Amino acid sequence: MAKLIGACMFGQSGGPTSVINSSAAGVFTEALKQDCITKVYGAKHGIKGILDEEFYDMGEESLEELMLLKNTPSSALGSVRYKLKSYEDNPADYERLLEVFKKYNIRYFFYNGGNDSMDTCNKVSKFMQKSGWECRVMGVPKTIDNDLYGTDHCPGYGSAAKYVATTLMEINLDAKVYNTGMVTIIEAMGRNAGWLTAAAALAQDGLGADLIYLPEVPFSTEKFLADVKEVCAKNNNNCIAVVSEGIKTAEGKYVSEAEVSATDLFGHAQLGGLAARLGGLVSKELGVKVRPIEFSLMQRCAAHLASKTDIEEAFNAGAKAVKCAVEGMTDKMVVYKRVEKDGKYACEYDVMDVALAANTERKVPSEWIINNGTYLSQEYIDYAMPLIQGAAEAPTENGLPRFARLKKVLVKK
Amino acid sequence: MAKLIGACMFGQSGGPTSVINSSAAGVFTEALKQDCITKVYGAKHGIKGILDEEFYDMGEESLEELMLLKNTPSSALGSVRYKLKSYEDNPADYERLLEVFKKYNIRYFFYNGGNDSMDTCNKVSKFMQKSGWECRVMGVPKTIDNDLYGTDHCPGYGSAAKYVATTLMEINLDAKVYNTGMVTIIEAMGRNAGWLTAAAALAQDGLGADLIYLPEVPFSTEKFLADVKEVCAKNNNNCIAVVSEGIKTAEGKYVSEAEVSATDLFGHAQLGGLAARLGGLVSKELGVKVRPIEFSLMQRCAAHLASKTDIEEAFNAGAKAVKCAVEGMTDKMVVYKRVEKDGKYACEYDVMDVALAANTERKVPSEWIINNGTYLSQEYIDYAMPLIQGAAEAPTENGLPRFARLKKVLVKK
Repeated sequence: MAKLIGACMFGQSGGPTSVINSSAAGVFTEALKQDCITKVYGAKHGIKGILDEEFYDMGEESLEELMLLKNTPSSALGSVRYKLKSYEDNPADYERLLEVFKKYNIRYFFYNGGNDSMDTCNKVSKFMQKSGWECRVMGVPKTIDNDLYGTDHCPGYGSAAKYVATTLMEINLDAKVYNTGMVTIIEAMGRNAGWLTAAAALAQDGLGADLIYLPEVPFSTEKFLADVKEVCAKNNNNCIAVVSEGIKTAEGKYVSEAEVSATDLFGHAQLGGLAARLGGLVSKELGVKVRPIEFSLMQRCAAHLASKTDIEEAFNAGAKAVKCAVEGMTDKMVVYKRVEKDGKYACEYDVMDVALAANTERKVPSEWIINNGTYLSQEYIDYAMPLIQGAAEAPTENGLPRFARLKKVLVKK
Repeated sequence: MAKLIGACMFGQSGGPTSVINSSAAGVFTEALKQDCITKVYGAKHGIKGILDEEFYDMGEESLEELMLLKNTPSSALGSVRYKLKSYEDNPADYERLLEVFKKYNIRYFFYNGGNDSMDTCNKVSKFMQKSGWECRVMGVPKTIDNDLYGTDHCPGYGSAAKYVATTLMEINLDAKVYNTGMVTIIEAMGRNAGWLTAAAALAQDGLGADLIYLPEVPFSTEKFLADVKEVCAKNNNNCIAVVSEGIKTAEGKYVSEAEVSATDLFGHAQLGGLAARLGGLVSKELGVKVRPIEFSLMQRCAAHLASKTDIEEAFNAGAKAVKCAVEGMTDKMVVYKRVEKDGKYACEYDVMDVALAANTERKVPSEWIINNGTYLSQEYIDYAMPLIQGAAEAPTENGLPRFARLKKVLVKK
């Protein structure tokens, strides 16, 4: 296949992770090496930056700073939650994209994100094909939710899972320090899939959770209270429960939004998170000391605690996207394939049609959820454990993280 | 001075830290080396364990596991919040202590904690003197609050400060990732002194907080809203404020307990923390997106992110207490003295009367609080920066922390 010569555009989209910038580093460093790629652009705030003609010239950055992106959390270029409508509903966006692609001779487009972002990526890909503008489009997966279809796991998941398991072990020791008993309720992210919350089961040495609730299992407040009560009775009023923010009632309503009690005590959803609400309920109904904890943004941005495996795989996924595009592929997303090498976990990189990843969701298999919906099986642990291996070894300066300092030179319009 | 031969008792008390066990490791390993110390006991749940005659024989533990305590957060022996009353109010407790001390020939007593614990330590010391039971009593300081009098800083503070500064930098990157603006309100621990919240000022690269509120400055909701509004106006609706849980109104009432609004919206203190309450207020009054975050237990138990300086100093403080007692000292608390060696920060260990540490509090100097009560001066940064230096290098197993696994052999009554 003849080499396609032109510029490349890379964008980050959706909720950031500890390692999304590692994929960016993979894309940038690989693209800068390729002779056929004349310019390497980074879109400011994803697709929005392209529409607004705001993007950075990544060729202006030093290789050293680009490599520091491997340990820099969040989306260095800025992210966006802009859902591209269908061409029929909003042709202007598509025409504008084509205009910008033509103006800057963009022949390679890499988009890094989760299911929604892959939908955008897919739409851009199909439109460019239809319009006759030759442009190789590749999706790079990303999500702490680990819910993308077609890939063994997702970049970002291993690091967030490592945060959950490590922090849980530390909290477990702290929560049991007095002889008075305490119910600790921890809220982890994951609106529709419970992969991240499941990582609580990775904790070792008996320093994990007693109860784990995923959105895959309908949540009953009564059963939850009974479960907590049972653990407390056995365990000197100590109990650690980890709940996914996305747990839903049997009617499909998010518990975080539902009235979890008949009293008006829980009617102010905007004030406390789910953990605080469930905690209030436990305190009221069981009369025990309660500590609600939200892992909040920390679980997705704690780059100092990232998994080395995750960092390296995310980097490789970015580089793979560029290599595949240069070799002639388009309309694909990079996927991870788990293989065994010398009896050990290893990851290989493959591609699949980006359309397959768009807007699909992969949930935790129901057979992996055990103990009457309150724990994870050994199959899950065997699946997830390899993904959290290795330390980030993030560079520091003055005892604090040394994140990438990009120049971010905006391309002149 | 003649060597005093007998057993030693060590107890942990008050809220745990990331490095309180490092002091325990210092005490245990030093005590086990001393010929005059016949037995090394660890009290289960502090003073309570002595009263209940429940303590562990630390000689049963391997040196390797004891050294792993350096990287094991929380109080490995169990902590307690038991305030010893005066002898006049509760002679029974004192008689019981003496009974147990005599039964096990306890001639060395080491107690590790904050101001309240030093009060206990002081009372035990004075009582043993009065009763004629020769027992050398030494306090080992500990508190993430950094508010103990007479010591340059406290074991536990450096690690908690490192957590606050590092996590803030990571959150800062995450919070600004969209182009839509968000007010992030972070709550840090510290009921009466703002040292830990002040650590937000250590963040580098412009990745810190815009506003920092300490309990040392009376808190006005109106001024807070005006401050946030001003930052938002300059900064595309982005603002990061770090507040101490202990901020109080001019009337001396904790804001976390006060009605922060005239509406009943904030009348449910038990549901949300301070950050959530202030966040609700900002959202309502300024109409901006808000993310409240509590550092919760993580700030005091994140041993994986502990400061090496803090770990080593805490260990040395424990060992110093034993050495001093063996040399004949009693009724003292170990203190840190900051010295300069070759133009660099160094820490030396000294002692002072334990009575001086009992129930006193050291606050952040008012001249270090600048920007109309919303930031910290360079003097603070120069003071605190050396304390967060060095990485924990905590051992791991399977990608997760390898904490000390103590046998905890209870001594037969």
